[in-house]
Amino acid sequence: MSDFVLHGNIIYSKNKDEFNIVENGYAVCKNGISEGVFDTLPEEYKNLEVIDCQDKIIIPGFTDLHVHAPQYGFRSVGMDCELLEWLERHAFPEEAKFADVEYADRAYSLFVNDMKTGFTTRACMFGTLHTDSTIVLMDKLEKSGLKTMVGKVNMNRNSPDYLREDTDKSLADTERFVQLSKRFENTKPIITPRFIPSCTDELMYGLSEIMHKYDLPVQSHLSENPSEIEWVKELCPWSTSYGNAYDRFGMMNDKTIMAHCVHMTEEEMALMKNNGVFAAHCPESNMNIASGISPVSRMLEEGIKVGIGSDVAGGTTLALNRAMTLAVQCSKMYWRYIDKKYKPLTLENVFYMATVGGGEFFGKAGSFEKGCEFDALVLDDTNIKTTVDFDTKERLERIIYLGNKHNIASKYVCGRKIF
Amino acid sequence: MSDFVLHGNIIYSKNKDEFNIVENGYAVCKNGISEGVFDTLPEEYKNLEVIDCQDKIIIPGFTDLHVHAPQYGFRSVGMDCELLEWLERHAFPEEAKFADVEYADRAYSLFVNDMKTGFTTRACMFGTLHTDSTIVLMDKLEKSGLKTMVGKVNMNRNSPDYLREDTDKSLADTERFVQLSKRFENTKPIITPRFIPSCTDELMYGLSEIMHKYDLPVQSHLSENPSEIEWVKELCPWSTSYGNAYDRFGMMNDKTIMAHCVHMTEEEMALMKNNGVFAAHCPESNMNIASGISPVSRMLEEGIKVGIGSDVAGGTTLALNRAMTLAVQCSKMYWRYIDKKYKPLTLENVFYMATVGGGEFFGKAGSFEKGCEFDALVLDDTNIKTTVDFDTKERLERIIYLGNKHNIASKYVCGRKIF
Repeated sequence: MSDFVLHGNIIYSKNKDEFNIVENGYAVCKNGISEGVFDTLPEEYKNLEVIDCQDKIIIPGFTDLHVHAPQYGFRSVGMDCELLEWLERHAFPEEAKFADVEYADRAYSLFVNDMKTGFTTRACMFGTLHTDSTIVLMDKLEKSGLKTMVGKVNMNRNSPDYLREDTDKSLADTERFVQLSKRFENTKPIITPRFIPSCTDELMYGLSEIMHKYDLPVQSHLSENPSEIEWVKELCPWSTSYGNAYDRFGMMNDKTIMAHCVHMTEEEMALMKNNGVFAAHCPESNMNIASGISPVSRMLEEGIKVGIGSDVAGGTTLALNRAMTLAVQCSKMYWRYIDKKYKPLTLENVFYMATVGGGEFFGKAGSFEKGCEFDALVLDDTNIKTTVDFDTKERLERIIYLGNKHNIASKYVCGRKIF
Repeated sequence: MSDFVLHGNIIYSKNKDEFNIVENGYAVCKNGISEGVFDTLPEEYKNLEVIDCQDKIIIPGFTDLHVHAPQYGFRSVGMDCELLEWLERHAFPEEAKFADVEYADRAYSLFVNDMKTGFTTRACMFGTLHTDSTIVLMDKLEKSGLKTMVGKVNMNRNSPDYLREDTDKSLADTERFVQLSKRFENTKPIITPRFIPSCTDELMYGLSEIMHKYDLPVQSHLSENPSEIEWVKELCPWSTSYGNAYDRFGMMNDKTIMAHCVHMTEEEMALMKNNGVFAAHCPESNMNIASGISPVSRMLEEGIKVGIGSDVAGGTTLALNRAMTLAVQCSKMYWRYIDKKYKPLTLENVFYMATVGGGEFFGKAGSFEKGCEFDALVLDDTNIKTTVDFDTKERLERIIYLGNKHNIASKYVCGRKIF
């Protein structure tokens, strides 16, 4: 890790509703940690290399809080299928291919390369149930320089024979996975029951034990779709809600990510808030699979932790700026049709979610506040041509709505230059 | 115009629900008109030049049925504003700049260049109220090779002084505009009252006269937003609905485009259908401005003519594939939250809307059926990398969801090669 200063137009979140914007400012990185942002460079940093980003915009990196790495190959295909048809025709057959480590190697190379060259600096992702292929994924991620958490998926019921585990083997493989992943520095294991319909109570309790034994985080899906929620009621008649079922398994805490959270009961909202559970908001997937619109504005207002997820391949793209745009757009439809009590999301809100909101799952990240791990994107908007003059916030808005990886001039994770 | 054959994987609409897919097929163009698509090249065309598109996909071009050319410069800025704030802070001040023909020249150059290099082969667009600047726009479009209809906008009430016309001048300028535009071959005038809140009854009746005198088409906005609809009720107390008001002015016929059509009464739906009025569905704008979700599935099912509009700058991008994707996604939210009676839109539906649906406003266009004007896009998907094998329809779906102008290898309008 090197010490340096980025000089340019710096934007990061002051809080969920406001930006800090420092034009021609200095973002100082020492030992991979932010020293803060300054109007003029303080004397104590005068010996550091200053990287002149000129008129470019400098922001913290984005965290993709929910993505299925093995589904990347068929992203944006089968979008007219209903959920079950989509799983059976596309998701399950493709995930089954990852039994072949050589196939995993080829497929994960494309995935990791695209994530590396995009807006994402950190991510929490699902692999498949195959331990060795998931280690292949982690190996590539480690080399990419990104900070990630990766789960070997557990699933022992309600999937085809060719993609279902025996309970004992699922638990033993999970322990093996945790052991194998100890060699990585920036790529950490995360316990990953696919979702309750895929996992028996016995498996869930077993995973919970491993989780507590190794002090690991956990990720899964919560209240995505009305029929899924009904199904969980049948499968867990002893629970008062889908979220309550996870809680009984010991999996609803401040090291938990629950993806989607679309159709939430009051009990589930309170549980998320009181236990500090992270919600991964995946607006594109929620539209594509016709799940619905998550009450994100309310979650944010109530202080529930919320990040953004691409949810590839329920979502079609790793480009988190697209997910941020769709989050704003969907929140407007939520306001129009479901509940006028909560205002639509703003650019400030979704930027906060994509940076601080998801970054907090990794500790101190997603901001240039002093003490945060230093992730940065240097953005160049010159190819989004116009005859209009914009201020710095407007330039950021244009990149979020219209930009793609070609607008990223350089990228840093924990103070290391990725490109 | 030249005679030639495109050889490759050809997709076009059989009807609103089905594709014609001819792999390794031949699309024949003579004098700018399609002779049809063939599995093997018929003897009578053997003397024509065959352009080998190899494994690429060949589709008809897309029609953008609703777009505001002068708003292109501030696309994707101010997306957190409410409609009135957005008009006052962004749309009106920017449109006012087009009083300066030199500014119009610079701004319209960017707009036309981006449209020329994108998926759009035909478009119906709004200029500003300034006649000379709108002619500048038409001149550039004519040179681009695209087929378009362009309106000098009329507005004589409810806008700032700096962007409001006197009724007589508005009508006189419209006649002058029609005369000046006679010199163009592929760029035609279309009568363009901004919308009823911007135009007095007197102006509307005057425009209707000019429309009928020169046998011109007409475009405007209909039932976009609940408060706009209430406003029209106050402004036209003699009407039974917003649509009925346009009808009384003589502007609801089969040469009419009504943009948005989000909050439609039964009377308005019947009027659209019975009079053969075209609806321009603008899903992105309807989200961005928090208008709502148009009942497009129902319109299609009932036989109402529907095309797709980017509605820049209510929409942020000219890329109609993005609008098509959002149309599918929004229709799923319509199904989930508003009415389960109509199924979500499919890829076939939105492809039909973007090709045939909008193309029909120009006569016979948007298809490779014999007799249609020959517009084509040759699409290259090799940069959307994957380890999965896809069939031709799936490859098209990937380009619609993930592609951009860089996936267009070449483009033809009326048999002329644009690039």
